[in-house]
Amino acid sequence: MAIIECVPNISEGRRPEVIAKMVEALRSVKGARLLDHSSDQSHNRSVFTLAGDPVALKGAVLALFETAIPAIDLRSHSGQHPRIGAVDVVPFIPIENATMADCVALAKETASEVADRFHVPVFLYEEAATTPARTNLEDIRRGELEGLGARMASPEWAPDFGPRHLHPTAGASVIGARMPLIAFNVNLTTDSLDIAKRIAQAVRHSSGGFRYVKAKGVLLEDRGIAQVSMNLTNHEETPMHRVFEAIQQEAARYGVGVLESEIVGLVPAGALLKTAEYFLRLRTFTPDRVLETRLRQE
Amino acid sequence: MAIIECVPNISEGRRPEVIAKMVEALRSVKGARLLDHSSDQSHNRSVFTLAGDPVALKGAVLALFETAIPAIDLRSHSGQHPRIGAVDVVPFIPIENATMADCVALAKETASEVADRFHVPVFLYEEAATTPARTNLEDIRRGELEGLGARMASPEWAPDFGPRHLHPTAGASVIGARMPLIAFNVNLTTDSLDIAKRIAQAVRHSSGGFRYVKAKGVLLEDRGIAQVSMNLTNHEETPMHRVFEAIQQEAARYGVGVLESEIVGLVPAGALLKTAEYFLRLRTFTPDRVLETRLRQE
Repeated sequence: MAIIECVPNISEGRRPEVIAKMVEALRSVKGARLLDHSSDQSHNRSVFTLAGDPVALKGAVLALFETAIPAIDLRSHSGQHPRIGAVDVVPFIPIENATMADCVALAKETASEVADRFHVPVFLYEEAATTPARTNLEDIRRGELEGLGARMASPEWAPDFGPRHLHPTAGASVIGARMPLIAFNVNLTTDSLDIAKRIAQAVRHSSGGFRYVKAKGVLLEDRGIAQVSMNLTNHEETPMHRVFEAIQQEAARYGVGVLESEIVGLVPAGALLKTAEYFLRLRTFTPDRVLETRLRQE
Repeated sequence: MAIIECVPNISEGRRPEVIAKMVEALRSVKGARLLDHSSDQSHNRSVFTLAGDPVALKGAVLALFETAIPAIDLRSHSGQHPRIGAVDVVPFIPIENATMADCVALAKETASEVADRFHVPVFLYEEAATTPARTNLEDIRRGELEGLGARMASPEWAPDFGPRHLHPTAGASVIGARMPLIAFNVNLTTDSLDIAKRIAQAVRHSSGGFRYVKAKGVLLEDRGIAQVSMNLTNHEETPMHRVFEAIQQEAARYGVGVLESEIVGLVPAGALLKTAEYFLRLRTFTPDRVLETRLRQE
């Protein structure tokens, strides 16, 4: 059976009774499982992690819109995180027996139904984007709700689905498909923030590094340890081991070592299997050599 | 749901119609999945790989006895592989949401029913053994069917279940519980069989190496490559990475490198996750950080 992950971001992180209603709505959808959810007061934002088959996930997203739209009014919303909609961003992520193409199709279907039923304009992003200008979430939400609302008048910013104007209270939504994101941090045997920043600069895409790496240097003050803090946005194209080895190389240049690494949140098994494959120099290894993979095959 | 693996070894590898009947019997058991099966003519032996919940697997093993007993007569059996029974060896292996204790309990229940229904004496082995003298399969089947039959007269070789004499045509059976076995080979950048043999000697338990490693040196003649060919019998206690690193160290002593490694058959995901954890120096990593593990949790 196809398993897809869906991580909706909602512009509500302060009212527990509203969040509880959303949790309840999501839990009542058959075939969808709520794996995790967390709310941030200062961001005034909640993130839900769901997994299930495509039909169930579409149902879950629609149920979320149905709960969120009467409850959230963006005109009176405040919070540190940039936002453009009550249901702000909805990525679909292939996990098991599902391809990126399946997730793109699911994103489009869901976007179309959201626009029809709730009259919310929807922009497709990442792998589901219909033009390169909409691939990056940052480009779509530049200037937040107000900036996007103004841009929507021009033809190149017409939404992919729905009306060419913002919903009065729910704004707009961004729905799409992307690879799983891995939050991967590497701690150094130094307290030099400067060295961590230089290494981050060396490995991240924005300054000439690996295509699917976002990185910054931070200082863990309580431990006196400098850290290269990263998001790996496509572990198949830019695998964990390559980034780890590059960090070790760059660190050695400053006479510094790698103390340890850590994964924040969840990691797809495939990313770690690929890592083992690399370090053991496994020959002709395929995921169907893994017993548990074999168990899941239809 | 608990998932256990079961790998029955049958003393029949030559008559396709008999093997087909066994496959059919196993496939008809609800809740058990036949993941793999292979037969060896010279050994006159077949190996079936099943997975499922405990109830289903017990049913599958009983179905296998029911098919094997009228079809196989050990008095006229010949083959290179040592054998003591028509259904020769049946290990249960914990895979998911199941402990070794669950597998030991399942082995004992199954053994008891086999003895009752088919009047075959059963010896419990490995983790299910009732005395250290029966832990190793090699000790139980020393002298094969004939040797075991003679020993059964003495009190210390009374079977754990069933009659104190061999079944006239089906002999005896060995049923137990063990960790998954990983067939792991490391190929060297040399064609020296001697070097491969020395490295095998260094890492294997029988000559002072790691507790859960069986190893020998072989020459892959078609490729002109020497190989350290291993069985890892408990990857939790003796992890893959430790054996791999030790082989690299020992090889360096002879000026030789590791070309590549390979896994033959199936490998439990946990063994490779542990490998990635080691090489990435992951801090506070637990299997429930893996997305797919989270999906399986009840």
